[in-house]
Amino acid sequence: MATRDVTACVLIIGNEILSGRTQDTNLSHIAQQLGTCGIRVIEARVIADTEDAIVPAVQDAHRRFDYVFTTGGIGPTHDDITAACIARAFDRPLIEHPQIAEKLRRHPAPDDVMEARLRMARVPEGASLIGNPTGGPEGFRIENVYVMAGIPRVMQAMLSTALPELRGGAPMLSRSLTAYVGESRIAQVLGRIQDNNPAVEIGSYPFSRDGRFGTTLVIRGSDQNVIDAVYDAVQSAVAATGAEQDNP
Amino acid sequence: MATRDVTACVLIIGNEILSGRTQDTNLSHIAQQLGTCGIRVIEARVIADTEDAIVPAVQDAHRRFDYVFTTGGIGPTHDDITAACIARAFDRPLIEHPQIAEKLRRHPAPDDVMEARLRMARVPEGASLIGNPTGGPEGFRIENVYVMAGIPRVMQAMLSTALPELRGGAPMLSRSLTAYVGESRIAQVLGRIQDNNPAVEIGSYPFSRDGRFGTTLVIRGSDQNVIDAVYDAVQSAVAATGAEQDNP
Repeated sequence: MATRDVTACVLIIGNEILSGRTQDTNLSHIAQQLGTCGIRVIEARVIADTEDAIVPAVQDAHRRFDYVFTTGGIGPTHDDITAACIARAFDRPLIEHPQIAEKLRRHPAPDDVMEARLRMARVPEGASLIGNPTGGPEGFRIENVYVMAGIPRVMQAMLSTALPELRGGAPMLSRSLTAYVGESRIAQVLGRIQDNNPAVEIGSYPFSRDGRFGTTLVIRGSDQNVIDAVYDAVQSAVAATGAEQDNP
Repeated sequence: MATRDVTACVLIIGNEILSGRTQDTNLSHIAQQLGTCGIRVIEARVIADTEDAIVPAVQDAHRRFDYVFTTGGIGPTHDDITAACIARAFDRPLIEHPQIAEKLRRHPAPDDVMEARLRMARVPEGASLIGNPTGGPEGFRIENVYVMAGIPRVMQAMLSTALPELRGGAPMLSRSLTAYVGESRIAQVLGRIQDNNPAVEIGSYPFSRDGRFGTTLVIRGSDQNVIDAVYDAVQSAVAATGAEQDNP
């Protein structure tokens, strides 16, 4: 019984990723976590923290995917404009959420500091909150768009509270094997195995490690029996080349 | 004398990045290298290795940016469809490039292996080659789209040969400082400094390190004198909070 894939898009908001200054690690974490829930990341976009970039990207992703996850731009400084842009994308007013504001007010601070801090309480009207187990201000969800922090530790905490409410499809399962063989040596037989098994996806990912070239072959699908059968076929094909394998 | 920014988009092609299995590092390398040439990465997209994903993404990026750089999907296996998709995006036939084919034929191989290997010689008609100092098959360029390998070492080698022919704008310069201070404490003064200095971009990037929160402040622009003046203003603002700074 094949069901439609449940899809997601990840929007990584932040000039620091686009300048190459900061290495994003949020995408791989989100993709792995969603994968265990049977939600498949179909696209990710890294965009600048400008309204011109964020608003259309959110609107487009909102329409095209079941779920959208954003990271970054929800702090208290001038370059944190994600909440305002999401409000604009959904044509809703930006309001101060009383629950976040109350949390932020618990720690007294000079007026100018508190005013900055309260920027983090701004959400589009009608948004619901995403818990933040680190103790900081919450993220928020509006329709299918989940808005999370950019700091990996905080984002991961938020995502862990959002995951239980997501409705995924069949979890994506996979098996992989690694072989020190040039891809060309196995390309044709792999192509035939793929053609005969459209229910799985066979990926071939070449690498160079300690000066040796090899490839990691990944079989992904939602039926463990099919994956196991295809794995055996791929492993036999690799073994036939005499290549060294490196499988745990 | 303000000149228009020279812009680029990076398209990272590959299911292994979207599944979270592989951590992309190509974006940050490309962004840093282009930055030194005065070319600014405005957007990056991570897309699946399907025609439906690649063709429209290439067409869109080709129109919107001065340069487009793709990584991944140019190997010999069934899931390597980047060259064919780029040809389709530009409505050109896919041909076997004689120079790449000649290089691939230098090493004898059984027919089926050679046939697979020669897939790597396929480029859209009219494409020019991007050198590959690692000795493997070349990448290619068609119009403003540079098509490179996904393996970081190979991609970096290809990019190094492509860089000298790019025409950038004023190189993006930056200075940064790191302070163990909550962003809220400096948000308002930072906002004022930013408002007064539209020629630079001030980014505030919070982090959590060894259990301590802090923020890295980055001042970017093309005029070193303006950057230095803004740096001094930002540093004074941070010093006024009494926060510990950690600047090399």
